[in-house]
Amino acid sequence: MKVLTVERKILKKNDDIAAENRQRFKQANLTVLNLLSSPGAGKTTLLERTLEKLANRYRVAVVEGDVQTDNDARRIAKHHVPVVQVVTRGGCHLEANLVQEAVANFELDALDLLFIENVGNLVCPANYDLGENLKVVIISTTEGDDKPLKYPPMFRVAHVCVINKIDLLPYVDFDIQKARDYARGINPDLRFFELSARTGEGLEDWIRWLESLIPKSTA
Amino acid sequence: MKVLTVERKILKKNDDIAAENRQRFKQANLTVLNLLSSPGAGKTTLLERTLEKLANRYRVAVVEGDVQTDNDARRIAKHHVPVVQVVTRGGCHLEANLVQEAVANFELDALDLLFIENVGNLVCPANYDLGENLKVVIISTTEGDDKPLKYPPMFRVAHVCVINKIDLLPYVDFDIQKARDYARGINPDLRFFELSARTGEGLEDWIRWLESLIPKSTA
Repeated sequence: MKVLTVERKILKKNDDIAAENRQRFKQANLTVLNLLSSPGAGKTTLLERTLEKLANRYRVAVVEGDVQTDNDARRIAKHHVPVVQVVTRGGCHLEANLVQEAVANFELDALDLLFIENVGNLVCPANYDLGENLKVVIISTTEGDDKPLKYPPMFRVAHVCVINKIDLLPYVDFDIQKARDYARGINPDLRFFELSARTGEGLEDWIRWLESLIPKSTA
Repeated sequence: MKVLTVERKILKKNDDIAAENRQRFKQANLTVLNLLSSPGAGKTTLLERTLEKLANRYRVAVVEGDVQTDNDARRIAKHHVPVVQVVTRGGCHLEANLVQEAVANFELDALDLLFIENVGNLVCPANYDLGENLKVVIISTTEGDDKPLKYPPMFRVAHVCVINKIDLLPYVDFDIQKARDYARGINPDLRFFELSARTGEGLEDWIRWLESLIPKSTA
């Protein structure tokens, strides 16, 4: 068995635009979350359940990133929040300039919370700062508990880790404690939520935490 | 709701090296499969079950591609087949030159079947020809049946689609017929296998098909 390694570079220009975005979000007193995961981990479903709980009490908007289709934006639009779909046409991640262009469609000062749902990809989006306040990585119990070890950059940059699909725990080989330990080994400051976006189990803590991010004056 | 689109370019040089690989594999009378999927769809587990059935009767080798760790190569090595781990250190896909370097460690003329397990990513690896004979995309029933629509490039380039984790069908919202129809809409020539690498259900057809790819003289 032999191990080969390769180095990668990260785009520089992206960071400058991300800094502009961050400045703009701060001016607007807006909390911005970047949702990151593999395809099918449940980002959109989590977002739908979240909007059901929050959209009637806070001013929420969504940027949807997808390789193709506006299916996700249509799912989100049903919850009566402003949504912009970014279709990357094969592109594997969102970049700060795409987010800048997308949020130009919102009145940022009139928002409390902005969710950016990144392209389903546990690798590339880790390298691209979008100007968000917090990165949330979502893993699901069907993906195996070794994912933090195998995709460490994503867990290194994340602030929060949602472990989704806990309703499937009886049917899969997934050790939550192992997954948490692996992830904390990479990033000791990670905060965890364990939930099922499908059944709603564990959603309350997540919602309460999101509410705590919204400046009190607007609540 | 607004839709923005972006164009992407594909590396040219990669195709030249892929052509060299393809030529070399042909000389060696070797069948090469490129296994592609999201993180956690079950590529490595499928490979392990496959090696259990084939490794005592055919000369099989494996190239493992991972962002980090040699965990997968260690799982494969237990099955007593030659394996080379390529660690991309954050890189989101294998490229033809990495495969060329990796297979230099094998005696290609003495092999019947080579599996290349790509990095877990349903986007980027679709753009990189490695010189393989066949691309196999693996999706799992926990990812949602809309994946072909949302990641069409991968399904366009694939020859075969394995639908894995059929043991979880009773517990998830996944319509196999829908997934097949979506995928066939993108690529009418796709061949499907439905199986559970975990329970072994449906594995026979997959194994029989793999055997049919091996030139008879070596069987």
